[in-house]
Amino acid sequence: MNNPAIIRINPLDNVAIATAIGGIGKGDSVVSGIVAIEDIPMAHKIALCDVHPGDSIIRYGYKIGTANRFIPVGSWVQEQMLETPEAPSLDEIKYSAPIPNPVEQLQGFTFEGYRNEDGSVGTKNILGISMSVHCVAGFANHIITRIKNELLPSYPNVDDAIALSHTYGCGIAINAPAAIIPIRTLHNLARNPNLGGEILVLALGCEKLRPEKITGEEAESDILYMQDESLTGFEEMMQAALQMAERHLKKLNARKRETCPISDLIVGMQCGGSDAFSGISGNPVAGFAADLIVRAGGTVLFSEVTEVRDAVEQLVARAADEEVAAKLINEMKWYDDYLGRGNADRAANTTPGNKKGGLSNIVEKALGSVVKSGSMPIVDVVSPGDRIKKKGLQFVATPASDFVCGTLQLAAGMNLHVFITGRGTPYGLAMVPVIKISSNTKLASRWHDLIDFDAGPVASGEKTIEAMGWELFQLMLDIASGKKKVATDVLGLYNELALFNPGPLT
Amino acid sequence: MNNPAIIRINPLDNVAIATAIGGIGKGDSVVSGIVAIEDIPMAHKIALCDVHPGDSIIRYGYKIGTANRFIPVGSWVQEQMLETPEAPSLDEIKYSAPIPNPVEQLQGFTFEGYRNEDGSVGTKNILGISMSVHCVAGFANHIITRIKNELLPSYPNVDDAIALSHTYGCGIAINAPAAIIPIRTLHNLARNPNLGGEILVLALGCEKLRPEKITGEEAESDILYMQDESLTGFEEMMQAALQMAERHLKKLNARKRETCPISDLIVGMQCGGSDAFSGISGNPVAGFAADLIVRAGGTVLFSEVTEVRDAVEQLVARAADEEVAAKLINEMKWYDDYLGRGNADRAANTTPGNKKGGLSNIVEKALGSVVKSGSMPIVDVVSPGDRIKKKGLQFVATPASDFVCGTLQLAAGMNLHVFITGRGTPYGLAMVPVIKISSNTKLASRWHDLIDFDAGPVASGEKTIEAMGWELFQLMLDIASGKKKVATDVLGLYNELALFNPGPLT
Repeated sequence: MNNPAIIRINPLDNVAIATAIGGIGKGDSVVSGIVAIEDIPMAHKIALCDVHPGDSIIRYGYKIGTANRFIPVGSWVQEQMLETPEAPSLDEIKYSAPIPNPVEQLQGFTFEGYRNEDGSVGTKNILGISMSVHCVAGFANHIITRIKNELLPSYPNVDDAIALSHTYGCGIAINAPAAIIPIRTLHNLARNPNLGGEILVLALGCEKLRPEKITGEEAESDILYMQDESLTGFEEMMQAALQMAERHLKKLNARKRETCPISDLIVGMQCGGSDAFSGISGNPVAGFAADLIVRAGGTVLFSEVTEVRDAVEQLVARAADEEVAAKLINEMKWYDDYLGRGNADRAANTTPGNKKGGLSNIVEKALGSVVKSGSMPIVDVVSPGDRIKKKGLQFVATPASDFVCGTLQLAAGMNLHVFITGRGTPYGLAMVPVIKISSNTKLASRWHDLIDFDAGPVASGEKTIEAMGWELFQLMLDIASGKKKVATDVLGLYNELALFNPGPLT
Repeated sequence: MNNPAIIRINPLDNVAIATAIGGIGKGDSVVSGIVAIEDIPMAHKIALCDVHPGDSIIRYGYKIGTANRFIPVGSWVQEQMLETPEAPSLDEIKYSAPIPNPVEQLQGFTFEGYRNEDGSVGTKNILGISMSVHCVAGFANHIITRIKNELLPSYPNVDDAIALSHTYGCGIAINAPAAIIPIRTLHNLARNPNLGGEILVLALGCEKLRPEKITGEEAESDILYMQDESLTGFEEMMQAALQMAERHLKKLNARKRETCPISDLIVGMQCGGSDAFSGISGNPVAGFAADLIVRAGGTVLFSEVTEVRDAVEQLVARAADEEVAAKLINEMKWYDDYLGRGNADRAANTTPGNKKGGLSNIVEKALGSVVKSGSMPIVDVVSPGDRIKKKGLQFVATPASDFVCGTLQLAAGMNLHVFITGRGTPYGLAMVPVIKISSNTKLASRWHDLIDFDAGPVASGEKTIEAMGWELFQLMLDIASGKKKVATDVLGLYNELALFNPGPLT
C-alpha cells in the first residue's frame, strides 16, 4: 500500500507516512480509496482508516498510542491526538510466548569466507595487534607502518595489518565491578573472525591489565613486552615486534576463501546520523535484509540500549523464550542504573526536532530504530563485551554511541557491518566491511563515494522495501565474499575502536 | 648527608634509604658517625638517630608515622615499627598558614619561545586540528597525512600538524553534570600555547557537542562541517579541509622564537611505570628542578589525585592560603565520590610489592609521588579540564592514568612536560616536548634512545640531587627553546590524547 506519496512499513499499520518533499495536499488521493482530507507535512502520519477513541494507533506493526478522539480516514494524525502508552516499570513487564509465525527458510545462499579453527569465518584476512595498555599505542602505530611497508608486500593474501588501540589497561580500577566489560571486550576483540585466530599482544610489563587476560590460556598466542630486559633500544624492540608479526603473517597468508553457508555470517546492524527517513527507508530495508539473513540461517546483531529502551515491551514480546526476555530486561535495568549513577536522563526521548519530523512520541522513535533488526524472534541477549553463543537474531546490549557500539559488536563476533545514516557520517572500521546505507537519495548523490547503498528509492516510492531488501541482501553476500569493496575500504577511511569502560579511572 | 650507600631527601629526615644493590651490611659506616647495626636491604630505611617511642619518623620532610618502640641509630626501620598516621576525614583537615620560608628568587634565566596573542608562549609551533566528534577522526587522519605530504614542506617554520582525537562528542550524556569536564578540556586543548592560537575544528554537523563549545565565541576560528551540503564527495571535503589548514599554516609559519622569561614556562610533572628508585632519584631531582622553575617565576603543574590522596594533609599544609586549601580538599572529595560511585577502592594503597620495595605505608608512597612537585607553596588548584589562571606551583586535579593526566595538563596550558619512569614507558605526546627521566642507570642504558635524562647517578651516589636538579633545569630550558630535541620527538613516537569523561555513555 505504498506509492510515491506515502509509505506504510507493516501490513498491520493503520497509519502511513507522507514521503514527498511537499507532503500531501488536501484532496490528494494517496492510495486507492483513500483521499487526504487536509494538508499533511512530509514525514507526518495519515490515517488509513477511521480511528475511534480508544483505538490503537499502529505503526511498525506495534501500538504507538491510543486515539483520544475520532480520527477520520485521510486525516493528519498529530501528536496531541495520541495518548502515549504508559512506560511500564521494567519489573512489571510480563512475558508471554510469541504466537508462532513460521517463515519460509531460505536455502542455497552462500558466501566465500576464510574458515577459522574455532569454526568462525572471516570476511577479511587481517593481522591484528592487540595491546594491553595505551602506553604502547604509539609504538604499535610505528609497528603497523613498518609492517605495511616492509612485510605486507610479501604476504599478498593478507588484507591489512591493524592495531587494536584503546585507552584502557592502566590507571583504571581493575577490580571495580564494571572492569569485566572492557577486559572481556579486549579478549573477544582479539578473537574477531576477521583476525584469523592469530593473537598477538603488544604489552608494556607493569600495566594493571595483564596481557594474559587478552590472550586467554587456550590460545597459541604471542606477547611482546616493551620492558623485556633483553631488548636494547627502539630498533631492537621494533625487530622483535616485526618478527612476531611475521610468524603470524605466514599463517594468515596461507589461508584461502572457501564457500560457506549464511549461518557463518554475523551481521551487525547500526544506525547513526539519522534523519526523518531513517525509520521509513533505510532501517526498514535493512530490517528486511536482516530477516533474509536469519531465514537463511545466519546471525544478526542489533544494539543501542538507549535507542530501543522505550520499545522494551515490543522487544520482550519478540523474545524467543522467557530466559531471553529476562536477560533483555536485566540489561535494560543495568543501563538504567548506570545512567542514574551519572545523573543522566535517558537520551532516547524525543526532541523538538524529532516531533517536527513527525515522531509523535518516544515509542514511535524507538520503533523506528528497532525496525532495522527485522521481525524475527530474538534468540539471545549478549552482555557488552561478550561473544555470541547462538545463531539467529540477537540483542547485543551496548551504548548507542556509534563507535562504542561497533567495537562491542566486533567483540561479539561481527564479521559484516550495516550502518544506516540519513544526515551522513563517515563511519568506518578497519576490522570488518561496513556497508553504509543512505536513507535518502540526496545524501547518496552528494556522498557518492562514501555511501554504498541508497535506500532513497523506497522513500520516493520508486522501489519497494522488499525489492531493496533483496538487493541489499545480495550486496551483503558479495561484500562478505570480497567480490565488492565498501566505500570506506576503497578510501581507507577508518575510525579507531572505542572501548566501553563504565568503571572509574584512578 | 648522602653517600654511595644511602640517600636522604630532606634535611629534616631522620631516616635515609639504602641505595646500593646489596643494601647495607651490618657494621658498614654509612656516613660520618653512623654505623649500621644490622643488615638493611636495598630501598629500605636506616635510622639516622635514636628514635624514641612516640617520636615521628620523618621522610621527604614529613611525618610518615610514629615509632611504637625504641629504634636505635643505625638500625633497619621496618614497617611494623611505625604506626601509620590515622587518615583524617577530608572534613576534619585543618588549615594553618604555612610558616614563611623565603627562598632566593632566581633572576636572569630565559628561553626562546613563540609568543601568542593571548600572552601564552609556545615551545613548539604546531597546527592542531580539533574535532567535535569521534565520527570525523578517520577523515582527520587523512587530512593530517595530506597536510604533511602536500603543505608542510612549504611552511618550514611549522613543526608539525596533529589531530586532537578523542572518543567524545556524541553518544554521550551531554547534559549530565560531569559533561562539563570533557567539554572544557576540548575547549582548552585547542588553546594550548603550542598551537599558536589557531583554532580550527573538524565537525560532522549532527553531533551533540556543538563545535562552538570548542572554538568559543571570542576566537577567530574555523569550523568545517563534513555534512556541509555544498561539498560533494570525499575529495571536495578534503580540499575544503586543506584550504582551511593552509589559512592557519600561513599565520603559524610567520612566527619566530623570541627571548621569554621563565614565567612563560608551564611545566607539567608526571611519573609512570615507577620503581623503588623513582621516589629516591627521579622524583626528587624533578622536584628540585621544579623549585628552580618556580623560583625563576615559572609555573609547575603536578597532578594524579589517587597517587597523592594519602598525603593530603601534607599538601594542605603547603597551600598558599585557606582558599587553595579548600579547593584542594574539594577536588579530593569529588574524586572520592567518583570512585565510590564505581565501587572502586582508592588505587594508591601500598601493594605487597611496594612494601617489599621498602615503602612502609600509603603515606610514604604518596610522599614519594608528591616529591616531584618540589617544595614550594601551592598557589592554586585547577579542576580537571580547566586552564590555569596563576603562575607558580599548582595542583591540577586529574586521574593518575598517564595519558588522561597528560591530556588534562595540556588543557591546563602545559608547554613542557617532565615524565619520570623507573621500569620504562614509551610515553610521548605530540603537542609538547616530553622530557623522559629514568630513575636508574640500567634503564637509561637499555632505553638509550627513549630516555632523555638519567637520574640514576643520584641513586648510586655519584651526583647530588641538587647538581642533577640544576642539570635538568638547564635541559628544560634548552628543550623549551628548541635547541635540543627529546627522544620521542626524534622518533616521532606519540600517543593519542585520552579524554577524562566521568559521565555515562548513552
